[in-house]
Parts: sequence; C-alpha cells; structure tokens
Amino acid sequence: MKFFEDIRVGETTEIGRHTFTAEEIKAFAARFDPQPFHLDEAAAARSMFGRLCASGWHTACMWMRLLVDHRRREDDARRARGEPVATLGVSPGFRELKWLSPVYPGDTITYATEVIDTRSSMSRPEWGIMTARNTGTNQRGEPVLSFVSSAFVERRQKQS
Amino acid sequence: MKFFEDIRVGETTEIGRHTFTAEEIKAFAARFDPQPFHLDEAAAARSMFGRLCASGWHTACMWMRLLVDHRRREDDARRARGEPVATLGVSPGFRELKWLSPVYPGDTITYATEVIDTRSSMSRPEWGIMTARNTGTNQRGEPVLSFVSSAFVERRQKQS
Repeated sequence: MKFFEDIRVGETTEIGRHTFTAEEIKAFAARFDPQPFHLDEAAAARSMFGRLCASGWHTACMWMRLLVDHRRREDDARRARGEPVATLGVSPGFRELKWLSPVYPGDTITYATEVIDTRSSMSRPEWGIMTARNTGTNQRGEPVLSFVSSAFVERRQKQS
Repeated sequence: MKFFEDIRVGETTEIGRHTFTAEEIKAFAARFDPQPFHLDEAAAARSMFGRLCASGWHTACMWMRLLVDHRRREDDARRARGEPVATLGVSPGFRELKWLSPVYPGDTITYATEVIDTRSSMSRPEWGIMTARNTGTNQRGEPVLSFVSSAFVERRQKQS
C-alpha cells in the first residue's frame, strides 16, 4: 500500500478483470445465495432475469479478491525497488452499494477504484482515512456494480 | 414472501444463526479475501486483529444465505396453509454497511432484519419498495454487522 501522504484524490486504478463462468456462479450461489436464478439455467429462464446470473454478493466479493491481489502485486514491486510499504488498516465498511445490471456467464467485469476523499483520523492520528468509489463494468461498457469504501491507511509521518 | 401491503414498519425478524468455524473462514478468504489475518492463525496473531477472524464479506454473505433459507421456510409454510406467496423482486443494492466488530472462529452470529420503510415504486406500480435495517450480533450481544437494504416486493393489489 502507498502511504497516506502519497494518495491523491482523483487517482483511478484498474485493479483487475474477472470472467464469470456458469460453474462458479452456481457454486457461489449454492453456498451463499441459493435463489433459483443464480443456481439453475431452466429456473433462471422463467425468472425476471431471463438467464442465469451471478449473485450480487458474488460480483462484490470478486472486487475484494482482485483488490487484495492488486495490492499484493504493488507491494511486491515496492519491496523489489527497496521502498517501504504502508500498512492498510481495517475498513469500517462501505456505503451506497448498487447492483446496476446483472452479470451473466461469460461476462468479463473490469473493476476499478477512484480515490474521492482523503482525511485525517481524529481518533487515530497514526492513520489517515481514504475514501474510494469502486466500480465494476462489463465488456459492453455497462456498469454492473458501484460502491463507496473507506479504509484506514498508515501515515509516513505520524501526527503528534 | 409477504405481499407488500402486509409488511409493517417496525416488524423485526430473527432470520437465523450461524457459527463460524476456522475452516470455513479460511476457505472463504482463500477464494475472496486472501489477507493473512483471514487465512492463517500465526499471521493473524501478528496482525492488528490478534486472532484469525472472518472476512467482513463472509459475515455479510452469511446474512444473504440465512435470509434466503428463512424466506423459503416461510413460503413453504404459506403454501402448506394454502396462502398465496408474493414474489420478491430485485434488490437495487444497499447502504451504510458497517463492520462493527471482528468475527472469530466459534462465534455464533444471530442475524435479524427490521423493516424501516415501505413506499410505492413510481416507475414500477406493480411493486412496492421495502427498506430494512439488517444486523448481525455475536453471542456476547455485540453488534458485528449492520446495513440497510432495499428490495422490490410484489403488491397484492396492482396500482393503476
């Protein structure tokens, strides 16, 4: 992770892409969201979606996975250059999560994150708070997911 | 699902309980949130959490699973009584998701949902919109999860 002081509002990063298969859509749904339109093609054809589609939670969880992978690659590159790596703190949560379009088997979702705010933490002076808008967009350029996340990020220079 | 007209603001329902095991915490994390404190006890002991704990997405996804199971049981009971069952429409998303405390192996989370608003849909007169506050609480009574969800619910009497 970058240190808090190095993060700029407006920075946008593509964190990764994922192509959803019917098999993984069904496997996720069987465990966490066993509704017919996420589990079975024939039942989905009779549903309001008309086709098998991914649980919205599945679409959101893949954002988390790709973000962790992206940050690991970035931190590995920093270490290879001999640079220090900041600690990413806990996330208190997120807001305004919107599922904007269904994700169907074969869809490739590109996930991106844009820094929309940085501010000091009053209660934890060694951390800053980064707020980001996160998006998922399918291969036709249609948005499928949007939400705003917050996370604590380590400061290089501790506040007194 | 109840029909929209039968839903009352203030109704609170316990939708289910789940005890998180170390094995499932690690399995979820390996797939969707591979951070050390969700994957490995020794690495977690060195982290800010001090112990292995569940991904916040895992805690949220179990809410979805228990809600689907709860509604299925309710709908089965309605059909057994010969009552009609309303269709639950899509969820446009949710807001204000907060992870309030970590969930550790062995913790039993009780999930509940409270209706906080019902309103007509201007764009889809055959549906109403139900808004609910959803919570997860551990066996010590500490809140671990809170968020507000919205969903379309079928009306018994279609608006003209």
